[in-house]
Amino acid sequence: MHVLITGAAGMLGRKLAKRLADVGALRAKPIERIDLIDIMEGPAAPAICASSVADICEPGVAAGLLRPMPDVIFHLAGVVSGEAEADFDKGMAVNIDGTRALFDAIRWADGTPRVVFTSSIAVFGVPFPDPIPDDFHLTPLTSYGTQKMVAEALLADYSRRGFFDGIGVRLPTISVRPGSPNAAASGFFSGIIREPLAGVQAVLPVSRQVRHSHASPRTAIRYLLHAAELDSAALGARRNLTMPGVSVTVGEQIEALARVAGPDAAELIVESPEPAIAEIVAGWPERFDARRALSLGFVPDQSYDDIIRAYLEDDVVSD
Amino acid sequence: MHVLITGAAGMLGRKLAKRLADVGALRAKPIERIDLIDIMEGPAAPAICASSVADICEPGVAAGLLRPMPDVIFHLAGVVSGEAEADFDKGMAVNIDGTRALFDAIRWADGTPRVVFTSSIAVFGVPFPDPIPDDFHLTPLTSYGTQKMVAEALLADYSRRGFFDGIGVRLPTISVRPGSPNAAASGFFSGIIREPLAGVQAVLPVSRQVRHSHASPRTAIRYLLHAAELDSAALGARRNLTMPGVSVTVGEQIEALARVAGPDAAELIVESPEPAIAEIVAGWPERFDARRALSLGFVPDQSYDDIIRAYLEDDVVSD
Repeated sequence: MHVLITGAAGMLGRKLAKRLADVGALRAKPIERIDLIDIMEGPAAPAICASSVADICEPGVAAGLLRPMPDVIFHLAGVVSGEAEADFDKGMAVNIDGTRALFDAIRWADGTPRVVFTSSIAVFGVPFPDPIPDDFHLTPLTSYGTQKMVAEALLADYSRRGFFDGIGVRLPTISVRPGSPNAAASGFFSGIIREPLAGVQAVLPVSRQVRHSHASPRTAIRYLLHAAELDSAALGARRNLTMPGVSVTVGEQIEALARVAGPDAAELIVESPEPAIAEIVAGWPERFDARRALSLGFVPDQSYDDIIRAYLEDDVVSD
Repeated sequence: MHVLITGAAGMLGRKLAKRLADVGALRAKPIERIDLIDIMEGPAAPAICASSVADICEPGVAAGLLRPMPDVIFHLAGVVSGEAEADFDKGMAVNIDGTRALFDAIRWADGTPRVVFTSSIAVFGVPFPDPIPDDFHLTPLTSYGTQKMVAEALLADYSRRGFFDGIGVRLPTISVRPGSPNAAASGFFSGIIREPLAGVQAVLPVSRQVRHSHASPRTAIRYLLHAAELDSAALGARRNLTMPGVSVTVGEQIEALARVAGPDAAELIVESPEPAIAEIVAGWPERFDARRALSLGFVPDQSYDDIIRAYLEDDVVSD
């Protein structure tokens, strides 16, 4: 089993590589090789991994990753939502052209690998029904969501034509994200939990009434692995799946924080409205009826309390 | 009023140019200039038109069309469904890259024109509810449908960002198409009417039970003009609209032919099943509940009989 991960230096890429190295097998085959690629140097990777720093948008880079063809490719590389909105050209270049460069390189090389692509619930934009059904149309209200929608469309067609065997996984907002904030507009959803758990104040830029869907990094990795394992015949032509999430309001997130870590933690959250963030978030979906993914065996977190506990277990190093 | 039409040598492009020249005004302003561009030479155009032959995929071509910026751009250029399925690279190059070249050229030039884009109901693929509501997701089963979906996504985002003021019009199958067949898999829907009306046998490659949505060329042009006139504030962020059509079975088309032209005409249709055509068509939608377009003032044909009569009036030259 030979695995390639793009965007491997990102939070999910690092966790995915570690998880694969720990488990040592995928699709019932021992993992012999894990190639990691990112435009930036990542932290030390597990011993089985071979890391390289390169831009898949550059000519020849994607093709070079496919000699020999991996069995499973996790395409995680991408410009995040806030950055894709601020720098339109960069988002188009990476999220569309970079993805297409990879897809075309796979097409022209030998083999039809499983390609697991991380899409996002940002492909949806208001107004929508509550909950949003699996057959609701994609109406992104950000360039990031648009670019993910385009990549999804290409993934489905390239799979239909047999160029590869793709599955797109629309991840809910990942929380609690470890480490420092990234440029995503959704960053505060993690910050209001992560910072108080470290005894640090956190800024809440939106109202406590804002409702949103979450998955822990642990669950997101489980989704990616399940997407790699899944029999794609069960998907038919509809290759992109909305992942189930835990739908809670910001207020409910804070209540969960108080339950798990005590009321003092919750008091470290400072409300400081930021209209630019609030406007982006207001266009995002609140709740999904992700029955297709559930029926295909994708298992969500059970509660926001569990999401906080997963963060404490996986990412907060105890002395 | 300065108008640009891409794909102007195609059937709809020619009819649109003629209609604009006849009416002489758009958005309540007299038309002073109509620029036509196509990769091939078209037939003689109305005197007000300036024709050029060029490929908008070539560097600089799109930018050259925008000096000065037209007030309204009808982007009709595209590779049709059968050809986009047979020649994947050509479809991608024209339907995605060509469209993006035009959109980016508009972005970089001064002005924010109305851009009317001809999308297609091929963005939908089975299975779907009957009828298909306006908020049903896009699941194309052809590369053509995929490429139209991608162009729709870009049009919506470029409009949201204020690069231009776009409206995508998902046309039903256009019938009765005048002239000779094109490479579209849907060509027989017109052929079974057009050929018998000329006293010629026509091949029917699919079952008479096949149901499909149609609009006459006259109505398609009306849709395009209405899209050019419409106040886009009424659209919000959802810039792509499914156009209403006349939903009939092939058998009902043939009954309409017999009513309008007599039973002898209908007897010129020869059933000759072609599985490749039948398979493509089987993935297409049958019927829409296009209430959003209807509420915005798009007016469909009233019956398939009317569609045949429109063809006789508009396209069959009487001696």
